[in-house]
Amino acid sequence: MKLIIGDKNYSSWSMRPWLLLKQFDISFEEVLVHLYRPSTTAEVLAFAPDGPGKVPCLIDETGAAVWDSLAIAETLAERFTQHALWPRDPAARARARCVSAEMHSGFGALRSNMWMNIRASFPGKNATPEALADIARIEAIWRDCLDTYGGPFLFGEFSIADAMYAPVVMRFNTWQPGLSETALAYVERINALPAVREWIDASRGETHAIPYQDVCP
Amino acid sequence: MKLIIGDKNYSSWSMRPWLLLKQFDISFEEVLVHLYRPSTTAEVLAFAPDGPGKVPCLIDETGAAVWDSLAIAETLAERFTQHALWPRDPAARARARCVSAEMHSGFGALRSNMWMNIRASFPGKNATPEALADIARIEAIWRDCLDTYGGPFLFGEFSIADAMYAPVVMRFNTWQPGLSETALAYVERINALPAVREWIDASRGETHAIPYQDVCP
Repeated sequence: MKLIIGDKNYSSWSMRPWLLLKQFDISFEEVLVHLYRPSTTAEVLAFAPDGPGKVPCLIDETGAAVWDSLAIAETLAERFTQHALWPRDPAARARARCVSAEMHSGFGALRSNMWMNIRASFPGKNATPEALADIARIEAIWRDCLDTYGGPFLFGEFSIADAMYAPVVMRFNTWQPGLSETALAYVERINALPAVREWIDASRGETHAIPYQDVCP
Repeated sequence: MKLIIGDKNYSSWSMRPWLLLKQFDISFEEVLVHLYRPSTTAEVLAFAPDGPGKVPCLIDETGAAVWDSLAIAETLAERFTQHALWPRDPAARARARCVSAEMHSGFGALRSNMWMNIRASFPGKNATPEALADIARIEAIWRDCLDTYGGPFLFGEFSIADAMYAPVVMRFNTWQPGLSETALAYVERINALPAVREWIDASRGETHAIPYQDVCP
């Protein structure tokens, strides 16, 4: 299997399946395509001509492309049933899908105001009311899940839901909004995962820059 | 089971699980909450206190809430295995998840320029380059799926993927962008489904209006 990803410093959507594969020790070849270049879309389409030309994109053993972070996660979950990519309990799994899908389609204000840029530090900036409302909802989701399932991860053991929220943790590292103790402790647990450390370290070593995302006016 | 939905005329996200349940003849009680009223969020939260206070939301037999159209679809697919909510073939299922997830998180220009308002007719309006690019991608997806799986629906028989794209068909009815013959034929097949007719007829009978969505300046 190949996973096509964008620059680790910037590509929040790529981080999800990459982290999921690493956490469950599923082997794959990583192919990194630099974002925001004239050739970016064509480079991704070369791997997956029927897809949208965006990362992440998984190319399976048959050469078939699976694009979109959530579709990749669902497809991996049903192909690697030896691993609990989703929680094994049906009620927990339904809830994990709710919070994962909510992240997948929502939180536009957080995304647009507090983009992922792991190397950058913009503490306290862009804390618009809409972004703060998104953050409050994320804190409520984390608190409910950690209370209900006992931690240390959202549904007990690490699952797809944690992979879906890991890029939010990266945003919180950069933008440092005020967070509850419960949320901060979860942020630290995600930051401490070896695979997350590996992603962060790699992003710090990257030299391809996207200038407009490196400044916060 | 209860399905909490918004006004049928406007609530594109509600249409997806409603149509899915109807098409597979899965019985449910429908609860309609009017959108864009001061009490809307509280009315939804009364059914699902842990959720985001948005429609659609499924309340299952145990009283547990499942929110978000795609999470509802995945949860129904695994609970009603007697029905092929997703295609039975694993490769087709992976592709169906790709195009469903792509719709779930994308097509922002289409959504913001050509909102769902079944009663309205705005032919040719708001055809911005970005909206037209979204429409071109949708046409490519439909063409690829119909070519690969032979129709009449995206993956042969009606599946979650068609439910995910049905609100786009409603948008095309209202905004009437130029479409290929293949796309127009698919639009007509979706419009002709009895459950879609039922949804459209109900929307025409609704009296709750959202004034700013009823005009296209």
